[in-house]
Amino acid sequence: FTSYDYTAFYETVVPQALEQMMDFEADRMRNLILNDDVIATERDVILEERRSRIDSNPQAVLGEEVDATLWQNQPYRIPVIGWMQEMEKLNRADAQAFYDKYYTPNNAVLVVAGDVEPQVVKALAEKTYGKVARGPDLPPRIRPVEPEQNTRRTVTLADARVSVPNFSTQWVVPSYHTAKAGEAEALDLLAEILGGGSRSRLYQQLVVKQGIAAEAGAFFQGPMLDATNFTVYGAPRGDAKLADVQAAVEAEVARIASEGVTSGELEKAKDRFVRSMIFARDKQDSMANIYGATLATGGNVRDVEEWPGRIRKVTADEVRQVAARYLNLNHSTSGYLLPQAGN
Amino acid sequence: FTSYDYTAFYETVVPQALEQMMDFEADRMRNLILNDDVIATERDVILEERRSRIDSNPQAVLGEEVDATLWQNQPYRIPVIGWMQEMEKLNRADAQAFYDKYYTPNNAVLVVAGDVEPQVVKALAEKTYGKVARGPDLPPRIRPVEPEQNTRRTVTLADARVSVPNFSTQWVVPSYHTAKAGEAEALDLLAEILGGGSRSRLYQQLVVKQGIAAEAGAFFQGPMLDATNFTVYGAPRGDAKLADVQAAVEAEVARIASEGVTSGELEKAKDRFVRSMIFARDKQDSMANIYGATLATGGNVRDVEEWPGRIRKVTADEVRQVAARYLNLNHSTSGYLLPQAGN
Repeated sequence: FTSYDYTAFYETVVPQALEQMMDFEADRMRNLILNDDVIATERDVILEERRSRIDSNPQAVLGEEVDATLWQNQPYRIPVIGWMQEMEKLNRADAQAFYDKYYTPNNAVLVVAGDVEPQVVKALAEKTYGKVARGPDLPPRIRPVEPEQNTRRTVTLADARVSVPNFSTQWVVPSYHTAKAGEAEALDLLAEILGGGSRSRLYQQLVVKQGIAAEAGAFFQGPMLDATNFTVYGAPRGDAKLADVQAAVEAEVARIASEGVTSGELEKAKDRFVRSMIFARDKQDSMANIYGATLATGGNVRDVEEWPGRIRKVTADEVRQVAARYLNLNHSTSGYLLPQAGN
Repeated sequence: FTSYDYTAFYETVVPQALEQMMDFEADRMRNLILNDDVIATERDVILEERRSRIDSNPQAVLGEEVDATLWQNQPYRIPVIGWMQEMEKLNRADAQAFYDKYYTPNNAVLVVAGDVEPQVVKALAEKTYGKVARGPDLPPRIRPVEPEQNTRRTVTLADARVSVPNFSTQWVVPSYHTAKAGEAEALDLLAEILGGGSRSRLYQQLVVKQGIAAEAGAFFQGPMLDATNFTVYGAPRGDAKLADVQAAVEAEVARIASEGVTSGELEKAKDRFVRSMIFARDKQDSMANIYGATLATGGNVRDVEEWPGRIRKVTADEVRQVAARYLNLNHSTSGYLLPQAGN
């Protein structure tokens, strides 16, 4: 898969097949044959993928234009799959240039997780990837950064295929890679306490107590190379109006920014986080994914290992502070997915 | 001055000084000395210009974020002066690279207007600019184009310095360079009839008859290299609400899209256009500017000369058609400048 900051290839095999798989993968890192036929076929595949996953899905169409509105300079405004009119023009020369530049051992992170011994994997890596010549040095990953945001923005899509409306509000916030010490951890806990599941404030208040929302939540995209987004969302239930749901979500955000969180809910959120990390590391594919994502977005192995300890150190006031500092509605971007007027 | 598509240097001198001026200008096209002192001073100048013209002016701050919201891929989303955080990092190497690449005779248009003879100017040009070596070939001017727009977007800035609110709504429309034959001319006439001055529908309806608007109008930025924008705007007067002014502006847009324009107002708009072109050509600086802007955005001398004839040929139905085709509120971007809540 390809995400905003990196492309990952992953495979699961029995330990005995590891050497052969690494041999194959090392070979296709530099020796892929890209001819016009392959490119034409693959371009048709991604165009069809775009048509089916994005263009025929109003939520995805809205999401793209919300991203391009939230991000006014940084590359996250560009869809990972690309804009249709540009994808149509991609050719063999583009693919070859990209492959030659980026698919090199000096631009790759190899993560092996499972029932293996480090020294055996290291020997295998030297025997396989180690034979691949180093590629040209890559330029530093310096990318356009966001200007200061000064406005409140909205993006609205009304579509006949929509029956229940929904909204999301997003803010530009620091990622683990760009944040000052402790801020990304506080944002992670803020998202968890505010809207991280059925125990969260948004769920309890809007879905359970007030009964106005079919769904309500929050998330924070921490492991990104550049500044990232913090998102709240909701959809009404029954006769409730979307505007009421949004107002109730915003009230919960404002309440945390002014009153903070309790030490009880903070401790419970930390427990859930640390537990979910333990569960994740229990599965070899998610463990590999955590290390790969961290290393590909500017972090290192120690960051992964020390993360539970850094989460434990976050104070209730630090959670309140990041809410107050970053979740300012006057500098936010909201997306609205609505039924067609008249429906 | 620098606009989105080109930079222009202009001077007005007596005919006797023309040769000396051309000699100076030909010299500084290639022989400018850019040292660190010059760059540091000039960077401070543009930073200060940005602070005073943009950052201390809420309308300009809003305008930048409206542009970056309207344009989601095309470079017009980037302010001409630049984003502050990027301007701060500009250095001698950046300036030198830009100068070496773009300040070449093979990337320049020389326009001389005034009491001169073509063959004399041509001889002078050969004697001055003609001595300057051709620079490296420039890459084709292929730039990212807009994806299909599917949403209605808003950008809102509330600021304590604002007393009277205002709004604008913008659409992505073809420019003279990208339009099918006749469409840009129809858009020019549409802007003139809808909101091109005190005889326009918006002015007559909102300012004169209903008395709800302090200002209301429309404009079309035709001479651009890429797709461009069509804009309507308004501000309330007295007790009128901004929302009422916007609704009245949108009603006039919808009325033209459904009912079209009368042949009487179309002929008067054509007369005003052709007359303003004659007046513009009467002044040597605006005449030079018209030719320079056209040639720098993909047009040629014949385009300028044939423009009045092409305007004359536009039919009332063609004006209605471009309004119906392009001015769809579901695919528009509005900017709102508001007083601070509580003011």
